[in-house]
Amino acid sequence: MLNLKTIRWCGDATGSLILIDQTLLPLEFREVECANGDVEKVWEAIRSLRVRGAPAIGIAAAYGVCLGVQNVLEADEETFFAKFYEVAEYLASSRPTAVNLFWALDRMKKTAEDFRLVMKLTHSFHPREAANRLLMEAQRIHDEDRAICRAIGDFGAELIPDGAGVLTHCNAGGLATADYGTALGVIFSAVAEGKKIHVYADETRPLLQGARLTSWELMQREIPVTLICDSMAALVMREGKVQACVVGADRIASNGDVANKIGTYMVAALAHLHGIPFYVAAPESTFDLSLESGDSIPIEERGAEEIICGFGKQTAPTGVRVYNPAFDVTPAKFVSAIITEKGIISPVTKENIRQILEK
Amino acid sequence: MLNLKTIRWCGDATGSLILIDQTLLPLEFREVECANGDVEKVWEAIRSLRVRGAPAIGIAAAYGVCLGVQNVLEADEETFFAKFYEVAEYLASSRPTAVNLFWALDRMKKTAEDFRLVMKLTHSFHPREAANRLLMEAQRIHDEDRAICRAIGDFGAELIPDGAGVLTHCNAGGLATADYGTALGVIFSAVAEGKKIHVYADETRPLLQGARLTSWELMQREIPVTLICDSMAALVMREGKVQACVVGADRIASNGDVANKIGTYMVAALAHLHGIPFYVAAPESTFDLSLESGDSIPIEERGAEEIICGFGKQTAPTGVRVYNPAFDVTPAKFVSAIITEKGIISPVTKENIRQILEK
Repeated sequence: MLNLKTIRWCGDATGSLILIDQTLLPLEFREVECANGDVEKVWEAIRSLRVRGAPAIGIAAAYGVCLGVQNVLEADEETFFAKFYEVAEYLASSRPTAVNLFWALDRMKKTAEDFRLVMKLTHSFHPREAANRLLMEAQRIHDEDRAICRAIGDFGAELIPDGAGVLTHCNAGGLATADYGTALGVIFSAVAEGKKIHVYADETRPLLQGARLTSWELMQREIPVTLICDSMAALVMREGKVQACVVGADRIASNGDVANKIGTYMVAALAHLHGIPFYVAAPESTFDLSLESGDSIPIEERGAEEIICGFGKQTAPTGVRVYNPAFDVTPAKFVSAIITEKGIISPVTKENIRQILEK
Repeated sequence: MLNLKTIRWCGDATGSLILIDQTLLPLEFREVECANGDVEKVWEAIRSLRVRGAPAIGIAAAYGVCLGVQNVLEADEETFFAKFYEVAEYLASSRPTAVNLFWALDRMKKTAEDFRLVMKLTHSFHPREAANRLLMEAQRIHDEDRAICRAIGDFGAELIPDGAGVLTHCNAGGLATADYGTALGVIFSAVAEGKKIHVYADETRPLLQGARLTSWELMQREIPVTLICDSMAALVMREGKVQACVVGADRIASNGDVANKIGTYMVAALAHLHGIPFYVAAPESTFDLSLESGDSIPIEERGAEEIICGFGKQTAPTGVRVYNPAFDVTPAKFVSAIITEKGIISPVTKENIRQILEK
């Protein structure tokens, strides 16, 4: 089986962050090393999707903070924390939609503030110790994700019938998390239970995460996969090839509306029309209970060049107007269940979400 | 306005067929010349989508027959007609789904057979005269298409409200016909009537006819167009940006089921779900009344490389399994109306189809 290390930290607090450069997959497996306080490199890696997927972005940002304080390891308290907040704010500006980014940065802030309080009580400040604490918290977030994804996978596997065709969109696999995945974790767990599964992977325009990453991950694990263009999802559903859809999420509002990769709403709407269950697999950290509904989720719009010059060749007229939202919002009514590490939320209602997450 | 000549014949029966190479658009405008009996070049142009769109394929095949008999212009009757049938059969093998190809070749056969009968009665055979007759018929098919598309456009324009956002899929414009288009003809006529229209053009994976051709045609005519990925069609519908969908067709069964470019069924299903009218614009020659339903329409499957190496760069793992149907079938229940040169068929029923086409 694939031993995937989407994100690695090497060494102590003065160490480096190593990311698989997912923009090069599947043709080239190359890692990016971010070291010596170079937090811009982490920001750029998140912004340009070298590391992507809501949980993975959270983990990368947490380590990014550790990297960001490397140049103030000899500084006084004020300088250290000023830098810390500057770095956290900077990393938060990399991508607006996935809430796990802000959730992870909030955990890092809480850790920093708790530590600062303790230091204040003892009238001492040791920046290296502060940095160690931050690294420990980032590693905890990272380790937790591994356990969370396995729990999601195991809860979700029961929803997938033996012999099913399962359609997924974008990549919510090991590459989108520490190593196992949310939506693909469900499939991996179903397969581990001995079920025969055939995956239909939407290629996921414009950036083709389904073609480049999901089909690659599934092939690495020898799980049968058929790659289709996004517009074929409707056809394979109509042809009876799909018994369940499962996707990840970037942010889930308190009413169960789900922001996820553009095209997810298409899949959900079509699954609804064809009477096929549509599942969202996501950790608690993806929920944003401060939002009443999906209408308040900020949707990142990306550059026209992703559509016009997708892959090394211009494929639309120069100057054409383009609409390129990176995400869409699926209303809760089209979501059959949300699979979390705490259990399955179904039907998807505000009350059920609260009940499961309070466990 | 754009003076588009998708297909031209230059000279007399010994002349040549000139096609816009649509695989190079929008970056390069280059024509392909087929001359000196080189019918293989016509076959290849149809097969590899240098000329595409159901009506345009029919016209190109009709001229292809004229080209195919150029090497038997001094032959005896038997040789001439043997070659004629060989060429017609060969061209029919280029693409299986669009019925206009077979319809045009049938018209050419009827012309050849009528002429042969007359020749038999006069106990004479003049191959050059036979070739002239064939060329006249091809030119008639070509000229008729111009008039037909304008009639479709004018009938269809009344269905498009002023100020509407109109979503289209693939290219059913001037490049898919002699010069005006079916689905885009409806938009052109609505604009000519003074209506303000904003077009949303699906890019149409895998071959991007929407990005490459539709957005190009609309920009040439200065009609506002926004290019989107196919998976965004659902979102723009949900956002209230689209008041009507209009597409072309490759074959329509007697019950109104419509085969058209892959992804059309997605658009129709989503339009149905969002309560948006979905229109098909197609000439009578696109109907295949010999078929009970869309289930019997042969669907062309094309090579995996169109999805794996679509943009001049490999974007999926080597050896990945791919499903690449070039068309899908939209059931009549999702089609609000079919716009033909004889009038509008709505609701789409077997009886209404027969009634309008019998006019």
